[in-house]
Amino acid sequence: MSAWVLPDHIADVLPSEARHIEELRRLLLDTARGYGCELVMPPLLEHLESLLTGTGEALDLQTFKLVDQLSGRMMGLRADTTPQVARIDAHLLNRAGVTRLCYCGPVLHTRPDRPHATREPLQFGAEIYGHAGLEADLEVLLLALDCLKAVKAPAVTVDLADARIVRALFAGVPVDAKVLRDVHAALAAKDASSLQSLTKDFPAASREGLAALVGLYGDAKVLDEARRVLPHTPAIAQALEQLAWIGRHLGGATVSYDLADLRGYAYYSGIRFGIYMPGASDALVRGGRYDEVGAVFGRNRPAAGFSLDVRELVGVVARPPLKAAIRAPWGEQPELREAIARLRAAGETVVCVLPGHESQVDEFHCDRELALQQDRWVVRAL
Amino acid sequence: MSAWVLPDHIADVLPSEARHIEELRRLLLDTARGYGCELVMPPLLEHLESLLTGTGEALDLQTFKLVDQLSGRMMGLRADTTPQVARIDAHLLNRAGVTRLCYCGPVLHTRPDRPHATREPLQFGAEIYGHAGLEADLEVLLLALDCLKAVKAPAVTVDLADARIVRALFAGVPVDAKVLRDVHAALAAKDASSLQSLTKDFPAASREGLAALVGLYGDAKVLDEARRVLPHTPAIAQALEQLAWIGRHLGGATVSYDLADLRGYAYYSGIRFGIYMPGASDALVRGGRYDEVGAVFGRNRPAAGFSLDVRELVGVVARPPLKAAIRAPWGEQPELREAIARLRAAGETVVCVLPGHESQVDEFHCDRELALQQDRWVVRAL
Repeated sequence: MSAWVLPDHIADVLPSEARHIEELRRLLLDTARGYGCELVMPPLLEHLESLLTGTGEALDLQTFKLVDQLSGRMMGLRADTTPQVARIDAHLLNRAGVTRLCYCGPVLHTRPDRPHATREPLQFGAEIYGHAGLEADLEVLLLALDCLKAVKAPAVTVDLADARIVRALFAGVPVDAKVLRDVHAALAAKDASSLQSLTKDFPAASREGLAALVGLYGDAKVLDEARRVLPHTPAIAQALEQLAWIGRHLGGATVSYDLADLRGYAYYSGIRFGIYMPGASDALVRGGRYDEVGAVFGRNRPAAGFSLDVRELVGVVARPPLKAAIRAPWGEQPELREAIARLRAAGETVVCVLPGHESQVDEFHCDRELALQQDRWVVRAL
Repeated sequence: MSAWVLPDHIADVLPSEARHIEELRRLLLDTARGYGCELVMPPLLEHLESLLTGTGEALDLQTFKLVDQLSGRMMGLRADTTPQVARIDAHLLNRAGVTRLCYCGPVLHTRPDRPHATREPLQFGAEIYGHAGLEADLEVLLLALDCLKAVKAPAVTVDLADARIVRALFAGVPVDAKVLRDVHAALAAKDASSLQSLTKDFPAASREGLAALVGLYGDAKVLDEARRVLPHTPAIAQALEQLAWIGRHLGGATVSYDLADLRGYAYYSGIRFGIYMPGASDALVRGGRYDEVGAVFGRNRPAAGFSLDVRELVGVVARPPLKAAIRAPWGEQPELREAIARLRAAGETVVCVLPGHESQVDEFHCDRELALQQDRWVVRAL
């Protein structure tokens, strides 16, 4: 096999896309900074226990493993940054108050998430630690929407769900982990018949509640319907009330509800959301509340946040035109060198034509050139 | 062991440093773009053969290996980005003319390069493909110096060397790879006695030339001395002449020469340089000409470039002050929300004090607050 063949689902990012990814990266990080999020950079490699304990357990199959030659211990390549950020909040920063953090870096997956997904997403995310109230849930969701606005993403739909509803329907039902997983999968797939057979021995309230969830998706009327058909427990009532509150505060965004939706990572503990582009079957952004994410690191702080893959995002937003460059001859004259340095300092791209390459087309599109006119170097249109 | 302990030589980057790294990253990429360098993003993972064939061979011990579950083949985590960029130039872009490329991303090393080095450097670099002339060598060196200027690095020294001199001294001498490595190590360490015993059976011209190299370091006078004491071969004469030409064109930078210096990666084929900060024993930037780097990918194009570790750079440049933020109360009033959105759109950081956290110190330093004054939200000093 040739040395230049890449592994499946691994790709180079070429100049036109790389430039755009870099632009989106800056816009996303700047938007998060505007909300007071501090940037952190967790490492790509950690001891496997750190990556996979607690809420990270679900990432086991997705995580590349390798041996640390220095210690002989197993290490993993991060498949998700959220548990790392929880570790930073819990141990390194160790603050009492609210902490807002953001990050942007590659993660690696042993298998693609979807048929055409990359195994090297560029994960951007933001998180608020230390506030249990709904204001934090709302702030991360508004920040996610502002991020999409900053990169000029087309109209989006916010899909709201709540991990507490399914949890409440399981309350007091003794089930093993496998059944729980299967029920979650049936709910995610809206597979009513599998759900029926999996829950046939459940207490009536749980069984009927779970069966009802499958149909509880759509606009705000879903919440009224849910109040009617789901068991009247305080946990479910609170979740429905909070979903309605969040929905009212999204300032005109299109909102839908899908109370059976449990896709994505397993660590959610409250309201969760997906943000969809028109026509996309998978969410571009996933987020919500995951209060238990830092528990394994010794601090069970309230936490809410979201993440997205910048490489996926770059595929769905319009590419801004490339700013054209200035072509300049190569020369040793100080006046020429100074003119080039001045233009570069002013933010221009100046491509020097190296001797012998005068006739070759520049890949950087040049719409102007630096030329000597009456003993002065001037920029003129091409 | 606790879940929050990181492997040796692996560290989190905390907010104040992460912010600074991000600023340097942007300045470096923008400086390279000013020279017409197009950004590329090669993958973190590749088939091991791609990473380690040809000039990448020297990276074997530094490269983490893992199994691709999709193919059962061995993959490696890149330990250096240059061979990947050569692959992109050779295969993906496949242009006839000059191509300028830059990159910035993490690389991973099985062992630290130096006692306190990280195993996860953030490698930034730029390269010019397709031009064999000295103008390309000069351009990458000037770009490297401009990058350091852009990040306000303190005064630097450029140390020039040339891989062709040692190569010429070996011409016609049958030596095996081990002896070659040992001689290189003795030269790098300026270990005259080891060199003497290693080369005792070499022809007199080689032996004496190699012995002379150990003393050939210092300012421009070194080149005159080299012309006197080294064998008068065309290759050595050309290398010395080109070193002098480069030295004359660096516009006032402090230049020194070290003709025995062979440190760094093994792929150099011509002029090479290191850029040093005062007091540092190791180069902050390494670069030069490596015309053979793309050969294994089927295209032996001329190439010159450099790279540096942004995480090392951030430790030696002064940290700019953090722009202070604006504190705002949390509230549902549309006027308040609009005032916050306007400030954020103008580039300000606005930290909302979430309910119940009024008395907690913000980690983001706030020097102003958004307050209601005569029914209008105004920013006032704190």
